[in-house]
Amino acid sequence: MEQDKQYMRLALEMAKSTTGQTAPNPHVGSVLVRDGQIVGMGAHLKAGEPHAEVHALRMAQEKAKGATAYVTLEPCSHQGRTGPCAEALVKAGVSKVVIAALDPNPLVSGNGVKILKNAGIEVVVGVLEEEADKLNEVFNKFIVKNTPFVTLKAAMTLDGKIATSTGSSKWITGEKAREEVHRLRSVHDAILVGVNTVIADDPELTCRFIEGRNPIRVILDSTLRIPLSAKLINDDEAPTWIFTSQSFDVQKKEELEKRRCRVFVTSSQEQVDIQEVLQLLANEQITSLFVEGGSGINGAFIEKRLIDKVIFFIAPKLVGGRNALTPVSGKGILEMNDALQLQNASIKQVGEDFCIEGYLK
Amino acid sequence: MEQDKQYMRLALEMAKSTTGQTAPNPHVGSVLVRDGQIVGMGAHLKAGEPHAEVHALRMAQEKAKGATAYVTLEPCSHQGRTGPCAEALVKAGVSKVVIAALDPNPLVSGNGVKILKNAGIEVVVGVLEEEADKLNEVFNKFIVKNTPFVTLKAAMTLDGKIATSTGSSKWITGEKAREEVHRLRSVHDAILVGVNTVIADDPELTCRFIEGRNPIRVILDSTLRIPLSAKLINDDEAPTWIFTSQSFDVQKKEELEKRRCRVFVTSSQEQVDIQEVLQLLANEQITSLFVEGGSGINGAFIEKRLIDKVIFFIAPKLVGGRNALTPVSGKGILEMNDALQLQNASIKQVGEDFCIEGYLK
Repeated sequence: MEQDKQYMRLALEMAKSTTGQTAPNPHVGSVLVRDGQIVGMGAHLKAGEPHAEVHALRMAQEKAKGATAYVTLEPCSHQGRTGPCAEALVKAGVSKVVIAALDPNPLVSGNGVKILKNAGIEVVVGVLEEEADKLNEVFNKFIVKNTPFVTLKAAMTLDGKIATSTGSSKWITGEKAREEVHRLRSVHDAILVGVNTVIADDPELTCRFIEGRNPIRVILDSTLRIPLSAKLINDDEAPTWIFTSQSFDVQKKEELEKRRCRVFVTSSQEQVDIQEVLQLLANEQITSLFVEGGSGINGAFIEKRLIDKVIFFIAPKLVGGRNALTPVSGKGILEMNDALQLQNASIKQVGEDFCIEGYLK
Repeated sequence: MEQDKQYMRLALEMAKSTTGQTAPNPHVGSVLVRDGQIVGMGAHLKAGEPHAEVHALRMAQEKAKGATAYVTLEPCSHQGRTGPCAEALVKAGVSKVVIAALDPNPLVSGNGVKILKNAGIEVVVGVLEEEADKLNEVFNKFIVKNTPFVTLKAAMTLDGKIATSTGSSKWITGEKAREEVHRLRSVHDAILVGVNTVIADDPELTCRFIEGRNPIRVILDSTLRIPLSAKLINDDEAPTWIFTSQSFDVQKKEELEKRRCRVFVTSSQEQVDIQEVLQLLANEQITSLFVEGGSGINGAFIEKRLIDKVIFFIAPKLVGGRNALTPVSGKGILEMNDALQLQNASIKQVGEDFCIEGYLK
């Protein structure tokens, strides 16, 4: 059993290393072991490319016969671009399959196991399941609910301010925390802000502090007030998608499209509806959304309970100010007893700053 | 050298155990060692009672002769209620004295060492000095500046709110954090809030969740608006001191005094001046002040740079709300670059909550 965990941990490490590059597919790793020797290993690297088990089987060749396969996610049972992995394992002649987590999709969950068992293969499920589930928290939500996994990020002073009363906000956190934010951006499919943030800060919303893929930049802009001079419209660093309402400015839309922005006209008459935006993003295969919204946008997401995960960076400094901006405004929750409680909250130090994260149910 | 640290660590542990009970005196511990055997140990327990060295010497009796004395603070050179300890060590015949930190008062610092050296005793200074300084951070400030060491405490949600937009604030943090607050109260000489907090919450400001001494309760109340029905006026759990301005209500003052409150009429015409309050508290031998002020009071303390230490409890929950109360209001600092930076910031988990603390220069 301890041995099983050891091999599964390796498979999980390999799966983890692909964070940010497999969407809309999950992160999966696999290890093949025969007679106490590792004979194959692999991870799914990119949608459209082979699954983890296929890589591992290719490496093992004929040594897969009689081996035990460790897989972080239930082998697939459907004919995708690379064929059902459960059948590939059967064909290769493995004698045992150890699985961390079942397919999260209740419609197909257990089907891979069934194929294996029907072929007389011993199957064990649930080794390091919790780690496996956390690793694929984005995929697990998207595949079941067909809506992006939403992470709310904020950076504030210890006294809860995201800008001073004059709007000054550079910089709240130190370099290490800003690097960490860029790393977080790079593992999300898209990043979202409100047009007010674009007007106030003219941000690039890229991952320029690190080596990493820039996410798609999503702007909520009900009337298309975004300045044509905004960096993220002109820099070509990543696609920029603007979500507007029926009250949009027709000429501005054309100008934005000339600059290769995609403009999504939503069905709302005035204020863009966040839920509709999430649905449209899901249709575009956006599985994960990083909200760096500003007070108002954050308030709207909180109010509609659309946040899955919260990551707050806290700088150990004070600015005070009755009129200073706080990370979440909006109407707010009225009774302290009804506050949205974070699950599995944890904290870490990031350079000179602190970072608290947790999940909302 | 490692041996020296080991004995000094024991002396520091004993000193630490007296937190909250020695004011206005410092926390001091002492260990006497002869031929590798501990022959005496002691700590200063309470102002007016013997110093740490005296307890240790009494325990050692004639074995003090030729021993090494470890003391967390330079032995005193002045004739206090228990005689100068430096001379007591000389008289007992110790051959060496190891000191963690010199007397913080620059006017007398080094005088104890001088007495010892003049008597031919070997003196080593600076073993675990940093720990010793932190242990007596309150005393070290008070003895030099004759003003209380001020700690600002707040409890807020992760999105920086100390109450919802309707004023609801019970409870933000969990039981463990509230217990920790009571423990913190019990080691301070006094606790301070504004009258608005008394009116809004009718708090007791005691240490009832733990076993500990209740601090003196200090209320800032420029016109004596405090309700005569307030718990802390009627409960007799600890002294209640009210600081008011020249605009105070004469009849209310009499009524408060009938209820055994002390009313301090300060020189201000309208708003009580915090700096004057600190001076008056120092005159009353209040060495440490725990500010649990509410937004406005906290803002005033921050604005005048009167805070030495900051302790923020953060509950992993969100309430949002543009009009929700934040921990520090007031005018605030205008530029993020000018934010008050915490020194030696650290974080810990307290039950389900988090606690960040640090120092302001």
